[in-house]
Amino acid sequence: MPLDRRKFLQTTTAALASGTLLRAGHAGANSPVEGPLRVAVLGSGLRGQNHIRVLLTQPEVKVTAIADIDPEMVRRTHEVFDEAGRERPIVYDRGPEDYRRLLTEATIDAVIIATPWRWHTVMAVAALRAGKYTGMEVAGAFSVDECWELVRAQEESDTHLFFLENVCYRRDVMAVLSMARQGVFGELLHLEGGYQHDLRAVKFNDGKQPYGGGVEFGEKAFHEARWRTQNSVHRNGDLYPTHGLGPAANLLNINRGNRFVGISSMATKARGLHKYVMDQAGPDHPNAGVEFKLGDVVTSMLSTQNGEVVVLHHDTNSPRPYSLGFRVQGTNGIWMDVNDSIHIAGESPEHQWEPAATWLQRYDHPYWRAEGELAEGAGHGGMDYFLIKDFVRVARAGIAPPIDVYDAATWLAVTPLSEQSVATGGTLQAFPDFTRGRWMDRPADFATAEW
Amino acid sequence: MPLDRRKFLQTTTAALASGTLLRAGHAGANSPVEGPLRVAVLGSGLRGQNHIRVLLTQPEVKVTAIADIDPEMVRRTHEVFDEAGRERPIVYDRGPEDYRRLLTEATIDAVIIATPWRWHTVMAVAALRAGKYTGMEVAGAFSVDECWELVRAQEESDTHLFFLENVCYRRDVMAVLSMARQGVFGELLHLEGGYQHDLRAVKFNDGKQPYGGGVEFGEKAFHEARWRTQNSVHRNGDLYPTHGLGPAANLLNINRGNRFVGISSMATKARGLHKYVMDQAGPDHPNAGVEFKLGDVVTSMLSTQNGEVVVLHHDTNSPRPYSLGFRVQGTNGIWMDVNDSIHIAGESPEHQWEPAATWLQRYDHPYWRAEGELAEGAGHGGMDYFLIKDFVRVARAGIAPPIDVYDAATWLAVTPLSEQSVATGGTLQAFPDFTRGRWMDRPADFATAEW
Repeated sequence: MPLDRRKFLQTTTAALASGTLLRAGHAGANSPVEGPLRVAVLGSGLRGQNHIRVLLTQPEVKVTAIADIDPEMVRRTHEVFDEAGRERPIVYDRGPEDYRRLLTEATIDAVIIATPWRWHTVMAVAALRAGKYTGMEVAGAFSVDECWELVRAQEESDTHLFFLENVCYRRDVMAVLSMARQGVFGELLHLEGGYQHDLRAVKFNDGKQPYGGGVEFGEKAFHEARWRTQNSVHRNGDLYPTHGLGPAANLLNINRGNRFVGISSMATKARGLHKYVMDQAGPDHPNAGVEFKLGDVVTSMLSTQNGEVVVLHHDTNSPRPYSLGFRVQGTNGIWMDVNDSIHIAGESPEHQWEPAATWLQRYDHPYWRAEGELAEGAGHGGMDYFLIKDFVRVARAGIAPPIDVYDAATWLAVTPLSEQSVATGGTLQAFPDFTRGRWMDRPADFATAEW
Repeated sequence: MPLDRRKFLQTTTAALASGTLLRAGHAGANSPVEGPLRVAVLGSGLRGQNHIRVLLTQPEVKVTAIADIDPEMVRRTHEVFDEAGRERPIVYDRGPEDYRRLLTEATIDAVIIATPWRWHTVMAVAALRAGKYTGMEVAGAFSVDECWELVRAQEESDTHLFFLENVCYRRDVMAVLSMARQGVFGELLHLEGGYQHDLRAVKFNDGKQPYGGGVEFGEKAFHEARWRTQNSVHRNGDLYPTHGLGPAANLLNINRGNRFVGISSMATKARGLHKYVMDQAGPDHPNAGVEFKLGDVVTSMLSTQNGEVVVLHHDTNSPRPYSLGFRVQGTNGIWMDVNDSIHIAGESPEHQWEPAATWLQRYDHPYWRAEGELAEGAGHGGMDYFLIKDFVRVARAGIAPPIDVYDAATWLAVTPLSEQSVATGGTLQAFPDFTRGRWMDRPADFATAEW
């Protein structure tokens, strides 16, 4: 965003904001960091530990503090530092609000938030107000209001929010983005993606191991099952839309010359989680009596201002192979990841699929071409390496991130909008414009940086 | 339908009907045919000729008459008879209404309608009123009223309408139906299907060959491009839903213990057909100025009373490999045809696809097991053989068909409902219950007959 427009916005929004909204210090934000970037990680569970592991591979980065209330996760996090031969961080563990004390530290430049979903926005808002460059893990929002709150907090700050959607950095996804930008698919028409991942052994465990081994969730469980499963008990919609939506939004230049205008969603009946409890533990287990409200497969259609349609799947309660189910189709060709195939008019044999590999290699993104081997070891197939590297790059420079607060708000809003649509049988929901019209002239610059 | 209920319905509906509705004779209908089944084919274009070719392979069938106004198609049809060494049919070719004269012939037991879409319902209604056992080719309806008209005509007749959806007889589709009925997928949740077929060389030709070679449509074109393409000029919705929907409806027992309750549809922009004209013939061709309204990819979601969701695709204007895109997913497993793979819990390796072939062979439907080799030569991969054989079976016996007027109305109605939804940005449409409540106790008996 040009500096003069930023200044204008800051002035006007600051004028509108109450005093308390701007109480935190902003020293040092929105300008280059001298020396190493000092990062704090809020939530050092397994995901936070992964981020720390990758952060510690980056030059000019120190992870100086963590906030977590679970002693076991703090212990494991210390091991990560020990294994990397790095100094252990300061731990903020005096209850769930202790991260606020962390945010007052002037020695911290940036934070990464990897807590349970319900903490993401509240922590991000606090971090932005404290002037910390903020990386926020993905999820789905609980309300559209929450998305607006995030937008306002960023606009009223002098720093940025980077929405940490790692699948945008997946090798095939980036290659397909390169292909699309070079016009290989022609004009884009129809995209699909989603979160199709059998999470039954994530939503339930035995209270000791993070995955499976039992049918406990909530207080008796460990790791994500402690909190994530409650969302499957109570909510019905696309609870986790961003892995499928983020890449589609980048391809369609959402918030950058395009925007989502409508969404409607339908959910199947909810059978899988109850069946899992029954099959694993029988009818006498207390969780056999839980009524899970999350439909086993939730499908959403999103329309855009420029005339494309995106179909999103959320499918986490059934036995099925993992697949984000990408499909990218334009006037000149189509890629699908479920059959790992491509058809390009005039290049592929008529009416026939070709293996995608040749195309994906030819259009391998410069990031991956340069550092693919380095990345492979960093987790989630290398995506996290580029995600964290990009985070460090923009946080050090104090510049706007490639996936910003408007993207965060837009992608997160799919969840409450889909819940409302599902609850009313599939009614169309208007999609908010979180940019308030600025989508018309924001540039599409994801993954265009020179490293 | 039990005979007493039929009688009741006939009495009540006949009492409601005006005298003219029942003017045609009903002699011989709804009772077994003595001797060979005498079939007339209305519309002897390429599709009608294919039906005739298959009909002539069946014992105890005579094709005694055809109605068509195109001398070239009549000539080609005569060749079909000559090649089969069978007597040429009586031709009704005195204009587009001459089929009505055909329908007055008491020597005709059954008709098959394979005319352009706009003639389907008007001809089927006339044929039912004339007491002919009626086979009607697939399409999409022009209005929901038209679907009701079809239902009323059948209810007021003493004969039947067989909706000729051939993909219901596809080998893999029938095997998957057998798997589903035997519980292999568990409780069904989410289904997909569609018509994803690059029809650009069907919608345009050079006026001489049926497929491609030019960019003409309408009067200057030959075969389907003479009439089908007008629908792409003027309409925007799922124009051809039944190939994807029929198999899904059978799997979900639609109109037989289940029904569709809602549908919403979104269409992408329309680019492909204009691009095709421009690429093939340049901007000076008159058709370069035509504004095609049909969105290149139209997606619909349908919800059911029993809590499943069906996603339908219509995708006919873009370069892409043919695929009906089936997905059948339940609480115990999933089949997808685009990657020709299956995953069944407890049988397949965890979180991994298996090639579908082994499963499809194991559950090969009895029809295909018995006569698969015979069928292979009959067109459309053998589907048409079983379709026509089933038609002859029920028409000869004078019994209700496996795909009846309620199925026809329901599947056809997707088109106008999707058009209305698309035209209003994706709004939810209520789905009519064409059975008027009878879906609650109609048996699910598709492909359960002993041959």
